[in-house]
Amino acid sequence: MVGAENVLVGDAERLARATGLSYLDLLRRRAPSADFPVPDAVVLPADPDEVQAVLEVCVRHDVGVVPFGGGTSVVGGVAALRGEKASVIALDLVRLDALVSVDAESRLAVLQAGVRGPEAERLLGEHGLTLGHVPQSFERATIGGFAATRSAGQASSGYGRFEDMVKGVRLATPRGEWKLGVAPASAAGPDLRQLAVGSEGTLGVITEVSLRVRPAPPVRRYEGYALPGWEAGAAAVRDLAQHHALADVTRLSDGDETEVSLALNASLKTTALRRYLAARGVARPCFLIVGWEGTAHDVALRRRETARRLKASGAVRVGKALGESWRHGRFAGPRQRDALLDQGVCVETLETAAYWSHVDELRDDVRAALTSSLGRSIVMCHISHAYETGASLYFTVLAARDETDPIGQWQRAKAAACEAITGLGTISHHHAVGVDHAPYLKAEIGELGVEVLRAAKSAVDPTGILNPGKLV
Amino acid sequence: MVGAENVLVGDAERLARATGLSYLDLLRRRAPSADFPVPDAVVLPADPDEVQAVLEVCVRHDVGVVPFGGGTSVVGGVAALRGEKASVIALDLVRLDALVSVDAESRLAVLQAGVRGPEAERLLGEHGLTLGHVPQSFERATIGGFAATRSAGQASSGYGRFEDMVKGVRLATPRGEWKLGVAPASAAGPDLRQLAVGSEGTLGVITEVSLRVRPAPPVRRYEGYALPGWEAGAAAVRDLAQHHALADVTRLSDGDETEVSLALNASLKTTALRRYLAARGVARPCFLIVGWEGTAHDVALRRRETARRLKASGAVRVGKALGESWRHGRFAGPRQRDALLDQGVCVETLETAAYWSHVDELRDDVRAALTSSLGRSIVMCHISHAYETGASLYFTVLAARDETDPIGQWQRAKAAACEAITGLGTISHHHAVGVDHAPYLKAEIGELGVEVLRAAKSAVDPTGILNPGKLV
Repeated sequence: MVGAENVLVGDAERLARATGLSYLDLLRRRAPSADFPVPDAVVLPADPDEVQAVLEVCVRHDVGVVPFGGGTSVVGGVAALRGEKASVIALDLVRLDALVSVDAESRLAVLQAGVRGPEAERLLGEHGLTLGHVPQSFERATIGGFAATRSAGQASSGYGRFEDMVKGVRLATPRGEWKLGVAPASAAGPDLRQLAVGSEGTLGVITEVSLRVRPAPPVRRYEGYALPGWEAGAAAVRDLAQHHALADVTRLSDGDETEVSLALNASLKTTALRRYLAARGVARPCFLIVGWEGTAHDVALRRRETARRLKASGAVRVGKALGESWRHGRFAGPRQRDALLDQGVCVETLETAAYWSHVDELRDDVRAALTSSLGRSIVMCHISHAYETGASLYFTVLAARDETDPIGQWQRAKAAACEAITGLGTISHHHAVGVDHAPYLKAEIGELGVEVLRAAKSAVDPTGILNPGKLV
Repeated sequence: MVGAENVLVGDAERLARATGLSYLDLLRRRAPSADFPVPDAVVLPADPDEVQAVLEVCVRHDVGVVPFGGGTSVVGGVAALRGEKASVIALDLVRLDALVSVDAESRLAVLQAGVRGPEAERLLGEHGLTLGHVPQSFERATIGGFAATRSAGQASSGYGRFEDMVKGVRLATPRGEWKLGVAPASAAGPDLRQLAVGSEGTLGVITEVSLRVRPAPPVRRYEGYALPGWEAGAAAVRDLAQHHALADVTRLSDGDETEVSLALNASLKTTALRRYLAARGVARPCFLIVGWEGTAHDVALRRRETARRLKASGAVRVGKALGESWRHGRFAGPRQRDALLDQGVCVETLETAAYWSHVDELRDDVRAALTSSLGRSIVMCHISHAYETGASLYFTVLAARDETDPIGQWQRAKAAACEAITGLGTISHHHAVGVDHAPYLKAEIGELGVEVLRAAKSAVDPTGILNPGKLV
């Protein structure tokens, strides 16, 4: 069906599609155990029709199918679980790499699922367009993965979350192709696009996505501010969000994360900066990165408005160096983890979102849960996505690794954090559910919510071949 | 359960909940026929718990339940169809009339489903807040109805569609209560809020909605522009939408709708205005209403930006009188229909939305379908909701009524319009599906989409008591 050369059964090829990029994935890759799930084969279809044909064969032979994009899941989303199936394949979508069409008048582009972030920008750039979706996984992750997991990019305040960009979806399902999205907005029943987006391969394999695009911005302007403490910082971001004055990138670090920046950021003259801030009443700073992208006119207009509000909120301008250094290092985080692992560090991130009235309490509770579980540790936090009604909280955790049981150490800490989140916020703001968050989904969407998802799955995938053991 | 006084079985009470406000509903009310479906009783629960208890009784006795809010559906959404059931009740939610809570910090308010538009604004106004949701049905329609039908208000460019405001939903279902919405945004699987919103009473009875609210605007500024023709007008609105320069209300009339305004609007000095516009190259004007709401600073800033872009698009400013007269008459349309009906006029509206590259073709096709079906008629059109990727099209139709078969006359015209829409746009941008659009849903969301909705319904409503015969 796809050609023999596009069915890989070698150990290296199968192992490469067996895990994502969570801390536990990295540990498991370093010390594989016998129960480590690996796909029986990797299949690489060329286009949506071949994806559909492969699914039909898998239904006939009752083979589980794990869609695989960039392999950047940090929640076990690409783990090769087989559920009740005797065999399971990784369906690698890397060959679905085309820009299918551009409708510049409607600012729409159809991209295939396997296109990675940089390639999407390159393809759109040829038409003078951009998607503007830049999550930390940008360099490896794919259009299909962004859609399947409800990704949110670092510039989500300006460009929106990925689901805001999705205007149409084409899915391959065991019951045939499914296409959604005929208009920018509709009252023709529930928005099924929003059911496909976030379905994590359980309701179909996303093969093409129709996306809202924008003109590539001629001007990018990033800068840094400092606020006197977390509460002041969160209040300032809330003020921006509630007055439609958010920069395209708006990212507030708490005191601990700011201290790490001050210690490690070579582009900052730390001593002088501390003195400058202290003289302006900011003894323990929280850094705020703000970045605008657009025409010179638009950036100037919006920057003036953001600056006006930030000043009223007590923010002190730090300048361009802080913004630019963040921008240049924005995708580096994941690459540093291997080095830290080599040094015996437990390093991981987790995230949530809540309404503003819960944000401070949620941050306190998650920090307390993590530190009391891990003992000696550094827990940093930032807000990277702000809304009128609330914000995301993103935690970066560093701890001394328990070498006798490193996996158990993190599983206990993560469970403590998830318990702290439940009831106050969402179990995931942009990392999705996968395997790791599945136990907490019921508390968030209700038993009925889980049953509705299962019923939807049964309708499109009656024999349950799609991504067994994920989401629900 | 609800008290005997809250179960109404009189003819007048049952008839009052038997129809919405479509042209066909008005005709049917004037000349009821034997097959006119009327609920067997009207039940008025006091609160969400009573709604839940009523559903459980209805499951036990296999009674169909039609949720009833303001009764303003124009697509048969409240028709008392009983499907396979021997009996059916109208579940009138008017007593669920409370503002449950306000979280000013998070800009969230929980309103019960039966609260009507003006009362919602009054209750929120006591807290200095507004919802900003003003569809033409505002005076009668309810919070629950807005959510169940994916309503869009006249100020949707500024305040968003109703589904954009919905942050949480509480539903009563035959399988128990279902609550959704713990954070402003989430990647915890598909967004089931967007499944509840637009479910038109088929997946549960919406009893409470958590809504994003905003400070009540101290300043409202409405004005009018004229553009030289439809294409120029649509291009100007597209330019605003794609440059984030839309006014909160942005409403473009086509030439025919503008001519009717010029003929009927007593506040316009028509002859002088025509001369003024002609001198500026606008011989056949298309009126554009733009309105901003907010602080003086915000309105001034945004108005300047909109004006700058409109000028570049060739728009000629007409002034405040046009904007203000539209604002004051904004809810009057439906009230004029009875007088027109008395005069032998067939009068109805219908609407759709499409991506920008289809907007002109869709307008032409729908107009052609309507006029060729109706013969002598006036078909007016406006854009009232604009997006980066497309816009809504709203048609108002006036024709000589065929007194021998007035219902068939409109059914044929409506079918012709729906056929013209299918493939180019959505079957409804903000009127929902109900009975009238149900035959066209499959073409829009696919057979699989319909089956997914049916599966979801089976999960929460296994015996099918909820709004039989609607949506799917």
